[in-house]
Amino acid sequence: MKNTFGTSVTVTLFGESHGPEIGAVIDGLAPGLPVDEAFIASRLTLRRPAGRIATARQEADAFRIVSGVFEGRTTGTPLAVLIPNADTRSGDYQRGPARPGHADYTAFTKYHGFEDYRGGGHFSGRITAALVAAAAVVIPALQAKGILIGTHVARCAGIDDIPFSSDLAADILHLNTLPFAVLDPERGDQMRKAIETAAAKGDSVGGILETAVLGLPAGVGEPWFDTVESVLSHALFSVPAVKGVEFGDGFALADMNGSQANDPFRIRDGKTVTATNRNGGVNGGITNGMPLLFRCAVKPTPSIALEQQTVNPLTGEETVLAVKGRHDPAIVHRARVVADSVTALALCDLLALRFGTDWLAASDK
Amino acid sequence: MKNTFGTSVTVTLFGESHGPEIGAVIDGLAPGLPVDEAFIASRLTLRRPAGRIATARQEADAFRIVSGVFEGRTTGTPLAVLIPNADTRSGDYQRGPARPGHADYTAFTKYHGFEDYRGGGHFSGRITAALVAAAAVVIPALQAKGILIGTHVARCAGIDDIPFSSDLAADILHLNTLPFAVLDPERGDQMRKAIETAAAKGDSVGGILETAVLGLPAGVGEPWFDTVESVLSHALFSVPAVKGVEFGDGFALADMNGSQANDPFRIRDGKTVTATNRNGGVNGGITNGMPLLFRCAVKPTPSIALEQQTVNPLTGEETVLAVKGRHDPAIVHRARVVADSVTALALCDLLALRFGTDWLAASDK
Amino acid sequence: MKNTFGTSVTVTLFGESHGPEIGAVIDGLAPGLPVDEAFIASRLTLRRPAGRIATARQEADAFRIVSGVFEGRTTGTPLAVLIPNADTRSGDYQRGPARPGHADYTAFTKYHGFEDYRGGGHFSGRITAALVAAAAVVIPALQAKGILIGTHVARCAGIDDIPFSSDLAADILHLNTLPFAVLDPERGDQMRKAIETAAAKGDSVGGILETAVLGLPAGVGEPWFDTVESVLSHALFSVPAVKGVEFGDGFALADMNGSQANDPFRIRDGKTVTATNRNGGVNGGITNGMPLLFRCAVKPTPSIALEQQTVNPLTGEETVLAVKGRHDPAIVHRARVVADSVTALALCDLLALRFGTDWLAASDK
Amino acid sequence: MKNTFGTSVTVTLFGESHGPEIGAVIDGLAPGLPVDEAFIASRLTLRRPAGRIATARQEADAFRIVSGVFEGRTTGTPLAVLIPNADTRSGDYQRGPARPGHADYTAFTKYHGFEDYRGGGHFSGRITAALVAAAAVVIPALQAKGILIGTHVARCAGIDDIPFSSDLAADILHLNTLPFAVLDPERGDQMRKAIETAAAKGDSVGGILETAVLGLPAGVGEPWFDTVESVLSHALFSVPAVKGVEFGDGFALADMNGSQANDPFRIRDGKTVTATNRNGGVNGGITNGMPLLFRCAVKPTPSIALEQQTVNPLTGEETVLAVKGRHDPAIVHRARVVADSVTALALCDLLALRFGTDWLAASDK
Repeated sequence: MKNTFGTSVTVTLFGESHGPEIGAVIDGLAPGLPVDEAFIASRLTLRRPAGRIATARQEADAFRIVSGVFEGRTTGTPLAVLIPNADTRSGDYQRGPARPGHADYTAFTKYHGFEDYRGGGHFSGRITAALVAAAAVVIPALQAKGILIGTHVARCAGIDDIPFSSDLAADILHLNTLPFAVLDPERGDQMRKAIETAAAKGDSVGGILETAVLGLPAGVGEPWFDTVESVLSHALFSVPAVKGVEFGDGFALADMNGSQANDPFRIRDGKTVTATNRNGGVNGGITNGMPLLFRCAVKPTPSIALEQQTVNPLTGEETVLAVKGRHDPAIVHRARVVADSVTALALCDLLALRFGTDWLAASDK
Repeated sequence: MKNTFGTSVTVTLFGESHGPEIGAVIDGLAPGLPVDEAFIASRLTLRRPAGRIATARQEADAFRIVSGVFEGRTTGTPLAVLIPNADTRSGDYQRGPARPGHADYTAFTKYHGFEDYRGGGHFSGRITAALVAAAAVVIPALQAKGILIGTHVARCAGIDDIPFSSDLAADILHLNTLPFAVLDPERGDQMRKAIETAAAKGDSVGGILETAVLGLPAGVGEPWFDTVESVLSHALFSVPAVKGVEFGDGFALADMNGSQANDPFRIRDGKTVTATNRNGGVNGGITNGMPLLFRCAVKPTPSIALEQQTVNPLTGEETVLAVKGRHDPAIVHRARVVADSVTALALCDLLALRFGTDWLAASDK
Repeated sequence: MKNTFGTSVTVTLFGESHGPEIGAVIDGLAPGLPVDEAFIASRLTLRRPAGRIATARQEADAFRIVSGVFEGRTTGTPLAVLIPNADTRSGDYQRGPARPGHADYTAFTKYHGFEDYRGGGHFSGRITAALVAAAAVVIPALQAKGILIGTHVARCAGIDDIPFSSDLAADILHLNTLPFAVLDPERGDQMRKAIETAAAKGDSVGGILETAVLGLPAGVGEPWFDTVESVLSHALFSVPAVKGVEFGDGFALADMNGSQANDPFRIRDGKTVTATNRNGGVNGGITNGMPLLFRCAVKPTPSIALEQQTVNPLTGEETVLAVKGRHDPAIVHRARVVADSVTALALCDLLALRFGTDWLAASDK
Repeated sequence: MKNTFGTSVTVTLFGESHGPEIGAVIDGLAPGLPVDEAFIASRLTLRRPAGRIATARQEADAFRIVSGVFEGRTTGTPLAVLIPNADTRSGDYQRGPARPGHADYTAFTKYHGFEDYRGGGHFSGRITAALVAAAAVVIPALQAKGILIGTHVARCAGIDDIPFSSDLAADILHLNTLPFAVLDPERGDQMRKAIETAAAKGDSVGGILETAVLGLPAGVGEPWFDTVESVLSHALFSVPAVKGVEFGDGFALADMNGSQANDPFRIRDGKTVTATNRNGGVNGGITNGMPLLFRCAVKPTPSIALEQQTVNPLTGEETVLAVKGRHDPAIVHRARVVADSVTALALCDLLALRFGTDWLAASDK
């Protein structure tokens, strides 16, 4: 399905970095969900580059919803959101050598040179603005059903944030207000300094995002092929720069014994819970009612000012490139909002498939 | 799509651990592919438990293809393969306490207690036999097009195998003959001993699988949502016990600078290649013609003989469980064949979408 | 999706006319639905050729369900049903001239000569036995929710049956017991005689099926692309020999004025109904709560004993053919069961997408 | 998939009759297809109401393509086309009684009263402008591959047009230039007069569209579920007002004998053809290389000035309605362009699945 994700609740993305507008269409939304444009704007602000650790490109992100909303609520028919590309300087981007680590070469090959190469075209992280706007419609609806999604920069430039506390709900609500989402502000300062240091060298850094989802009912997901992990990783791996996804203790589970890795069940307040959550809230591909926990590896931004060896796909000749233009020395803190967004959309789809189209709008939890 | 995976080439799985038969249906195959039943049998043998490091359950895996093959070749219509469950001892499996780390509790919740709980039912690793049989139809066809898939146990019980050598094709061909797939037999012996040690304690171990795919053309995959990483991780996370997937250097990329993480392009023998392959053969979600490389974290088998705290979902009461019956003290070496199988099926789908239904059967590479 | 139909509730078909077994997999069923094997058998009997107006081929249709049912109820995981092909006489079917009106030539072209050509292979009406068996699992569940499906042979060999009466429920229940489903037994006798007359001449006849569905809730279907009419016609046009589908007054609406064609709304017993039902229970692609009514044109069986001009696809030469073997002089009365079956499956899918996976099993209507 | 149609080439629709903009996204297009904005505009003009036989609503249809086109050619990434709703007079449309024959009542029921009811909202025929614009991108590409699509008003208000001539290509090319597409201009005049007569009475008329597709390769379509007829009818039944679809001789086949209905094969100029084309170019759900022929029944426009009995969904009370505002006394001649458009999009999808993504752009036929 390419640029469309989902089965019951779907999102379709379009647009290029330097085209006139980018956009997203969400279909399958429950009718009657309140649409809060101020919240959408605030989510776009979180995604937007800011300060010294980000590209100097500034986008007003003046989105407009052109369908699917009537008198402040979703209609149940497709919601299209459009965002004009206000600040494009195409002069900075001519087809030239393929930027290493970028899609320039693969796009040239796949599209036989017909792709819009300016600023990464359809591959640009810019397109995620539309995704963030679309997801901002459903995030409050999920929250109204008790489902909270929060992500922190768990690691950046080799510096670890502290882990989630025992009060996960408070952590999530706090993180969702932060432009640079860390649980420990001091660690965040260190990360930002490390980003600035890399930027000063013309280089970039990567990091790890850790996401928690609270309030998901048990029993969501499918045994084969559409496990919760399959569906979420499908969405997460289309976030630019994500190169790894792990659930619960993930790769660390590989070194454990079964007696450590298994989360013992117990009863607390009449409810089945697990004593630990090494499996990240998923057993056999199905949610078990514990917090859903996963981590994404985000590679360093490939656009760097340092000289790199590369090839010009048009001429097929080797050359040297120092990427010019405005670029982020790190993307991990901005990718946070995108990871939350695709998570929200994927969960809406899974929940709608399980409980029907109208569930998200139903007043009873 | 639940138990069906794929868009152009699809696979549908059915069956339960202790039902009469399990099976798979592949649809969308090119007509005219030779079907080698001996090869299918050999792949099932690789998946089958063997020796002291595996469950004592022995299955003849007497598969039969009931459709989609005529006079030794695929017809282009759905190919169904069935495998009887010969050796089921349902007496060993009565509904009881939920096994920690297993799907027992989530299946009970999702299916309201109507699931076939015997031996894990539809969640059992047993079902992967049908998947392996189905994939064994397409693996030789991929190979005939120059596409080789190989996986080794890169790590098990804390012991690392050696990395792939520079002769990746030789490594892959060698691995595909091994019941316990490691590049260094000594490390393999150590792993097996560690598995036996864990088994003797009534415990289990996990590991990491590393896969290489050679010969994929550049330009396969989509920018948003159906990236090669998205499609493959979707498939891989439905392999039981997989809890993490990373491409190229994956999580290690999070700690690199852009200048390290970017793979410089160069020209070799008139072809664009990269000097390193930290991105695992994928840029911007699209194959770049370099070997596709990824790793899966496989958690330790949850069925262990040691006592564990758990809950009986029927009664909602806490209890203690020591899993009886025949179980694997490690699954990682058997999951290898399953990882290869879902990789082969996912690649067939991506290739058919790109190049059309008949591509896999075309005689020119 | 080729041989798989549906989104939330899916059915996958496999098998060939002269292969060892045919089968179907239904996925997405609500858990806990009672499975009545006697009812399945009775549905297969209705589909089976019988008497002088049918092919002499006799199939015991000894189906077996190999997954997805446990202790007499659906588990919620894929249900696979298999039917052996007991009575195959492949000697009757060698690759020869393409039978006019059949898929022989198109299959040869599409599959480059690799198709199983015996008895029409995967294109054979024989495959519908698996479809009928699969649908027989959900028909009682729909009925338990008050949704009744019934079809009569509205026309055959130029002879009309009488229309549905005002007691549609009684009509449906009566039709579902009849091997040759007509509302007026005398008209049915005339039809059968006309079929026998055609058979005696080595020829065949066609007809029209009219289906009524009672008890569908209003609000099912989608405005664009997945209208109720789109989804049902998609299913119905894959019933072999169906060449036309119309809803409500269908083609007759083309000659009406709006003032005739519009169904006036009114209130009866506190419920919104329409005074007439020329739109067949669908407005704007969405059910309106009135009976769903549609008709399928079924062409005469293409296999006839009379000599026909044709071509041998292997040699590319013109030739003459008189089809031998056992064939139906009419298919319309047997296609009835298939039309009901695809209708039931398509409705299950639409209802599950709207109301969630478990709706069909919920005890409250 | 609701408002998205297709598998490999997809189209997603959004917008409401009185919202700010409507739009369509096509994904999966081959890269490098020339995009002719003048042709798109001409197609929109054909769809647009004109003269006395149409609504007085006038739309400039000033479409803009915001993505997926670069330097005049498709990029291969999603193409989004937007059309502002210039001439909306919402004062004419307040929520009131449900218009009989329209989606007002079903939309109210499905969306619980949250739908944008103005002018039919998302159900409005207005949305088809976006569909027509999207399809206008692919129609010249199909034509460049020798695939021609043409539709005439075969019947309107009880008046028949003449049948297609033996020079189908000429007929199609001629039809595609006509605002009121008939093969015999005199019959067209009679139809238009009949429409005006109905309009003068405050009533409306329906008709039948007949479509021919030339140049389709044999072997397109699937045996079960995705037959050419299934896929096309799925698309055609989502064209507003279509209530019947038949292929070849369709319902007339029901009254034929097999010896009449079967199209004899023969060899002409070294190619297998059929002597007649009663099956409309499809055997067993697969194209046979003959012209694809089908007909759609279009019901009379439901919006009429005459008084009708109806119900107010908000109050649940019976009332009387005479529809005000600007409406078409016939829609069949405008639906022609929409039928051609969905046909073109559905064929692109089927062809891309069969021959790969790039086929449509390949220079060799």
